[in-house]
Amino acid sequence: MSVQLNETHNPALRSWVTSANDGNTDFPIQNLPFGVFRRAASNEQFRLGVAIGDQILDLSIALHAGVFADISNAALAHALTASNLNALMDLGNQTSSQVRLALSKALRENAAAQKQLVGTLVAQADAEYALPAQIGDYTDFYTSVHHATSVGKLFRPDNPLLPNYKWVPIGYHGRSSSIGISGQQFRRPIGQTMPPNATTPSFGPAKRLDYECEVGIFIGQGNALGEAIDIEHAEQHVFGMCLLNDWSARDVQAWEYQPLGPFLAKNFASTISPWVVTLEALAPYRKAWTRDAADPQPMPYLDSADLRNTGAFDIQLEVLLQTEKMRRDGLPAQRLSLSNFSHSYWTVSQMVTHHTVNGCNLRAGDFLGSGTQSGPAPEEAGSLLELTEGGKKPIALSNGEQRIFIEDGDSVILRGWAQKEGTPRIGFGEVEGRLLPARNLS
Amino acid sequence: MSVQLNETHNPALRSWVTSANDGNTDFPIQNLPFGVFRRAASNEQFRLGVAIGDQILDLSIALHAGVFADISNAALAHALTASNLNALMDLGNQTSSQVRLALSKALRENAAAQKQLVGTLVAQADAEYALPAQIGDYTDFYTSVHHATSVGKLFRPDNPLLPNYKWVPIGYHGRSSSIGISGQQFRRPIGQTMPPNATTPSFGPAKRLDYECEVGIFIGQGNALGEAIDIEHAEQHVFGMCLLNDWSARDVQAWEYQPLGPFLAKNFASTISPWVVTLEALAPYRKAWTRDAADPQPMPYLDSADLRNTGAFDIQLEVLLQTEKMRRDGLPAQRLSLSNFSHSYWTVSQMVTHHTVNGCNLRAGDFLGSGTQSGPAPEEAGSLLELTEGGKKPIALSNGEQRIFIEDGDSVILRGWAQKEGTPRIGFGEVEGRLLPARNLS
Repeated sequence: MSVQLNETHNPALRSWVTSANDGNTDFPIQNLPFGVFRRAASNEQFRLGVAIGDQILDLSIALHAGVFADISNAALAHALTASNLNALMDLGNQTSSQVRLALSKALRENAAAQKQLVGTLVAQADAEYALPAQIGDYTDFYTSVHHATSVGKLFRPDNPLLPNYKWVPIGYHGRSSSIGISGQQFRRPIGQTMPPNATTPSFGPAKRLDYECEVGIFIGQGNALGEAIDIEHAEQHVFGMCLLNDWSARDVQAWEYQPLGPFLAKNFASTISPWVVTLEALAPYRKAWTRDAADPQPMPYLDSADLRNTGAFDIQLEVLLQTEKMRRDGLPAQRLSLSNFSHSYWTVSQMVTHHTVNGCNLRAGDFLGSGTQSGPAPEEAGSLLELTEGGKKPIALSNGEQRIFIEDGDSVILRGWAQKEGTPRIGFGEVEGRLLPARNLS
Repeated sequence: MSVQLNETHNPALRSWVTSANDGNTDFPIQNLPFGVFRRAASNEQFRLGVAIGDQILDLSIALHAGVFADISNAALAHALTASNLNALMDLGNQTSSQVRLALSKALRENAAAQKQLVGTLVAQADAEYALPAQIGDYTDFYTSVHHATSVGKLFRPDNPLLPNYKWVPIGYHGRSSSIGISGQQFRRPIGQTMPPNATTPSFGPAKRLDYECEVGIFIGQGNALGEAIDIEHAEQHVFGMCLLNDWSARDVQAWEYQPLGPFLAKNFASTISPWVVTLEALAPYRKAWTRDAADPQPMPYLDSADLRNTGAFDIQLEVLLQTEKMRRDGLPAQRLSLSNFSHSYWTVSQMVTHHTVNGCNLRAGDFLGSGTQSGPAPEEAGSLLELTEGGKKPIALSNGEQRIFIEDGDSVILRGWAQKEGTPRIGFGEVEGRLLPARNLS
């Protein structure tokens, strides 16, 4: 699985889609993330696309224009004309890498395909998105030791980080049905909570609504039930990554989560960004992965030389809040935190390998969450629960408002990008979700 | 939702399929459970069927024979010719009740349809089954207070039944991908465990393999994200029920389950029975549901007069074990326990309503597990963990073998049925699953 660069990574490549050549775009020709889109407010079928600058290239149009002539076959043609990415994911990363290379060639300056394709692009500003894949199963991990420790302190002051944490990439099953695409609006959940010092629970709208800033991981080719995916091959089973906001109702969670884990505190909504960035596109942003010498080293099934050399991803993760008042006053969203995926205690490959070590089968389109990504500094925390120290320390916003938890009408926006001198920026775009008032309880 | 009997429940009804008139069959004409089948070892498409005696009627054949002429429309025709029950489930219980009535009429003695249908039946002995539905999300509940208390004692001796148990129908998300149909064979899972008195975890095949005897619940028509299903309407969203063996690796579970719940301890395999028995078929077996006066009464959103009158189901649940040696020696499976679903602390309607109270959307074909059903007496326990008191008290089998947990080659069989004097038996058939040795770790 060692990480290699190829011609698609060449920093000198420029696209005939000129907005892709602006150094600030998330989607230069070196990125080429996949998604599912149609013209906004249309009755068109959703279809596959690739983001390039501020435009989208329709993959079925690219197919018919002969962009994939060198690699096309019936299975690929079927996959590229589908209304979700599952079939392409299922073809494996060698195929998606070939698709990526063909797209890179077709979108380069002076490409012959420009003439056929230029009139067919759809501006991202005119598009709406669907979930990139039909998600069979969604698993959420808990890979930030900083998050686990801070949250553990709040839920279990005497016992913050449990003894298994540094051995087991802790994960649990989430809910697929309520995963929505950026733009999702959802009602404040209603449920049972146990107020402080009460002896019987209350029922009503949750009061402690929170976001969780996570990286989402789409599985490509799966594995058969009973077969494990070893650590050396784990990344071959990952199609790509996006951003995930795993909304959480902290008061519901505190009352319900023992002994079987979070349930209604999480399954009312989870929002993801529309573009899936391939691991190949992120190759220039791999980092060594280390484990403190004082900590337990990973068991052999979770360790490898490649993992140590390049297991981590240098991806910046930003959380922004736009309150209803900011929106009304024309004020932009305000940053709440900035962290980096490379702080993760467990890697993407460790998540995949651990998930299957018992023979559990993953399927193309399955989705993993990284868990809330909080950095080592308190201001790098990926949730309000941490930033406000469990609701004790309100955040002062620059327009005079303050927040302990999310309020009705608030939008939370996550952004992610990889960037360094001399290498094109590889961005994730953003995911935005908005909390609506609870339904009427009459 | 008050429970009513109709002409399909008439105990005097007899079928022209004579095996359905034998008082011992699980599938008399008053049952008519739905499933997905084909001829064993064939390349046929899987198709919908209904069990009648020891035979199966193909629903697409019944459609073309005009059985549904009075109720048919394009949506129903589409649903009845599909390869899973999702579309029929999605049409709602009023439609499936009409389908049931039409089948009851067509399968009665002296029905005009007999001539067309009699040659088309497939013997259950010649059939193989697929999952009844494509399961979008699987949620496992924990509704037996006897199970929760016994298991709680083993995992948390000082704190067996947590304070939320009697208020919240505890549930958690499970894994859809590894749910298999009766006959499923799966490898002993491999993973991390923390041996007693050890300070670092071990890695290898799980040693404490267990079954869990549960009732499975298929959702019919779902609900939109943000809308709740109230308790009075909850059963209108349940298509029917089956048997579920939620295999568990107790040693993996003990080490991994805090703080986010069971994960690899459960997701290597779950096995369900092929026939889905409708709630309508079970109408004669409804019972009053009560809550001890000393216990907290359910919150208003989880309570109703109908629930109190008829919320429970009188379904016998039997667990049998057939070891490899028994099979070799031609010995039948041996009963390990017998319990009853009516002991459940929370009902089917409470599970559905609680699941959606926060706005979580259920979809047709979604699957709920009841959690292990253990009765009040120790010998009514629905898992080996309980029967052997955490592995301390081996079970002596009649052939001289003994068991603490499941051993390689063991089959576990669950059976379920409702039966009382003067009312036809409504059976679930059985679910069988077999443990294979762990994969080679070399």
